[in-house]
Amino acid sequence: MRIVELKIHSIAIADPPLRSSYGLHAPYALRTIVELKSEDGVTGIAETHGGDAIARGFEALRARVVGADAYRLAGVLLPLIEGEAQGSSLDRSQTYFVPGENPMDEAARLYSALEIATVDLIGKSVGKPACDLLGGRVRDEVSFSAYPFYKHAGGGGEGADAREDKYGEALTPAALVKQVRQMVAEYGFRDIKFKTGVLDPEIEVETVRQLRAVLGAAVPLRMDPNCAWSVETSVRVGTQLAQELGNGGYLEDPTAGISGMAEVRRRLLAAGVQTPLASNVAVTSFADLPESVRSDAVQVVLCDPHYWGGLRPVQHLGKVCRTFGLGLSMHSNTHLGVSLMAMAHAAAATPHLTYACDTHYPWQSEVDEIAEGGRVPIVNGCVRIPERPGLGVTLDYDQLARGRERYARLPYRKRDDEAEMRKHVDPNWKRILPRW
Amino acid sequence: MRIVELKIHSIAIADPPLRSSYGLHAPYALRTIVELKSEDGVTGIAETHGGDAIARGFEALRARVVGADAYRLAGVLLPLIEGEAQGSSLDRSQTYFVPGENPMDEAARLYSALEIATVDLIGKSVGKPACDLLGGRVRDEVSFSAYPFYKHAGGGGEGADAREDKYGEALTPAALVKQVRQMVAEYGFRDIKFKTGVLDPEIEVETVRQLRAVLGAAVPLRMDPNCAWSVETSVRVGTQLAQELGNGGYLEDPTAGISGMAEVRRRLLAAGVQTPLASNVAVTSFADLPESVRSDAVQVVLCDPHYWGGLRPVQHLGKVCRTFGLGLSMHSNTHLGVSLMAMAHAAAATPHLTYACDTHYPWQSEVDEIAEGGRVPIVNGCVRIPERPGLGVTLDYDQLARGRERYARLPYRKRDDEAEMRKHVDPNWKRILPRW
Repeated sequence: MRIVELKIHSIAIADPPLRSSYGLHAPYALRTIVELKSEDGVTGIAETHGGDAIARGFEALRARVVGADAYRLAGVLLPLIEGEAQGSSLDRSQTYFVPGENPMDEAARLYSALEIATVDLIGKSVGKPACDLLGGRVRDEVSFSAYPFYKHAGGGGEGADAREDKYGEALTPAALVKQVRQMVAEYGFRDIKFKTGVLDPEIEVETVRQLRAVLGAAVPLRMDPNCAWSVETSVRVGTQLAQELGNGGYLEDPTAGISGMAEVRRRLLAAGVQTPLASNVAVTSFADLPESVRSDAVQVVLCDPHYWGGLRPVQHLGKVCRTFGLGLSMHSNTHLGVSLMAMAHAAAATPHLTYACDTHYPWQSEVDEIAEGGRVPIVNGCVRIPERPGLGVTLDYDQLARGRERYARLPYRKRDDEAEMRKHVDPNWKRILPRW
Repeated sequence: MRIVELKIHSIAIADPPLRSSYGLHAPYALRTIVELKSEDGVTGIAETHGGDAIARGFEALRARVVGADAYRLAGVLLPLIEGEAQGSSLDRSQTYFVPGENPMDEAARLYSALEIATVDLIGKSVGKPACDLLGGRVRDEVSFSAYPFYKHAGGGGEGADAREDKYGEALTPAALVKQVRQMVAEYGFRDIKFKTGVLDPEIEVETVRQLRAVLGAAVPLRMDPNCAWSVETSVRVGTQLAQELGNGGYLEDPTAGISGMAEVRRRLLAAGVQTPLASNVAVTSFADLPESVRSDAVQVVLCDPHYWGGLRPVQHLGKVCRTFGLGLSMHSNTHLGVSLMAMAHAAAATPHLTYACDTHYPWQSEVDEIAEGGRVPIVNGCVRIPERPGLGVTLDYDQLARGRERYARLPYRKRDDEAEMRKHVDPNWKRILPRW
């Protein structure tokens, strides 16, 4: 099945002013929609990180994509990811760059999107859901977590294009608890992943305690300060919250680097704290795993089909994690419904998925959704694999055009959370690792 | 695509009197051919180990197979292999049982055959080669090794059904060298995998030296004594043959168990011998890998789609091996063309395959082949992936019927190389580990 057309759509979508240790989300997040059309008129799609750099990356691959057999493209392009440097490094990690902005994993991100688009194309061609082309689903429903953030007021977008602020400002424990209650009420989430590393750790500890008190003991709760803390602070917070995070939750990337994570782990275990450490910052590729396993730095790997190589590599990673006794969760970035469905299919076809997946989806709005028929439903915290072929979503081309128009109007072409902090919150703000 | 029929064909095929540390190959080897027929009349096939036990195993799964969706069966049956005991053990290994006779991996063997048959069925349904359904081939041709054995005279089969003895007796270095020359001349093999553990190690060392002298320095050469040696003997032979095996070859399962292999490795390295150790005996499942990696017991894993879970799990294993810096080769058992094509497709879709694959195929004969059109060609040591859907082979039902008749006539229903030794060579023979 020959691919006769590759289309790349750079779009912008409204994003609320969410805070993390990287800084502040801009009023618009950037995404890229990939279309592969086959000779028989079927279209496969994928969604990935946005901006001009990745769009140029796809253009550079155009000659290898157009004319290729959809069934073989992922094999043909494999040198893009198999050629990746072996051995891990801080440079290759997401310590200094937000996901989607590290030039060192650009090849993996390009490959991933094309792999996903070919599976969607094949699925739509033979009339089978993507997960069933990958060896067959192991679940029909995929659990996602609520993903509360400290945030400023506003729902994203700017001026006349501003979105409704459903959640309001949340910069105190009480406001954060309110946000979680709202999100759980709307989507039925049964797990909480809380983005931290924003306020003083004592306030964040207090927020987690209030959350635990409200949620009861049974709801798995995890926190992710994105390397904002020193080893010392990580051990202190991990110990303070041993009860709150220990019961089916985890502490994600408290500090930077595999060696830092390993030291936190050693010291937590010495203090009798079993809370596992998770990572999507120190461990972002297969090359990071040997050192991480050897030093017991990370007990839960966060996969992401957007940069681990697509759907099949997530399955490989699941097998690696099961083999070496690691847990597996799934990382999320700001995204729309096409990405959500790729994540859901990857999860549905990966047996060893030991935690509910992350998703930013509640932070996006119907106004920006480019999936035909509107937003993908999340019910009881789950996305159900639909009885539709491929990823189960198609494009609303009018909505896509609006996304392209928004992109064209923006003065920026890449994500820069530090610049946004300086622009909107503190003109002197700099990202400091560790901050506490 | 609903599966409406499962057929299990137990067949017997002639097998020459090959020797290994397990004993002697019987005049007939047992194989099982699996057929899955879909509601639209397409048939997917697989070949696996033989005998009554595995046939009963398939019968026990019949109710879960018939009626299932072919695209989902491998997912539905996954608990068969995901439920496998974690943590490795000698009992789970192939130390005491020949491949196909260990009850502890029967579930994995059943699963594997059904996984392969569904991929063949899907491939034949959509008109695509199996390897391209697995993410796309990374090679069009798969290299196999010559697989010389010490053997007694005879080509297999019995009485009026005896096969031609193309290779003759080979129980001396000179005869073994002649056998390799014959095999290389006929098939163009460029790698040699030599089954040892049969004669006194000094004679086997001499055989390897004569082989190396005849083959020249460039031909990768490996030897496989199937645990016949003590750690002491393994280290001695490994050191004696550092030159002969070191150049692109390996020493496979010289001694039993992961701890034994690890000790051999340590002592070889201490003696400056870099020859990697390979295994399909100590390491036979994902559960064996952590201990093996930790102790550096095995540097080359031999995958086998017949018991690692089928085609996709071989890809997972390839990724594990690449991630942890291990080499990957492929194990073979006595087999016909359907198995050969499953091995070839698994290899074609597994990027990190660092050695030519094993195959017993030269030991089988046209008379027994059940692939329509006759034997799969091996040219220049390679099997070329054909432009045909699925595994690229279909069944010759007349030949299959002959295989079933041979099976029905046999007095035995499982492989027992020790019993064959007692019957044909030495009435008092017992398998002793280590023998030397």
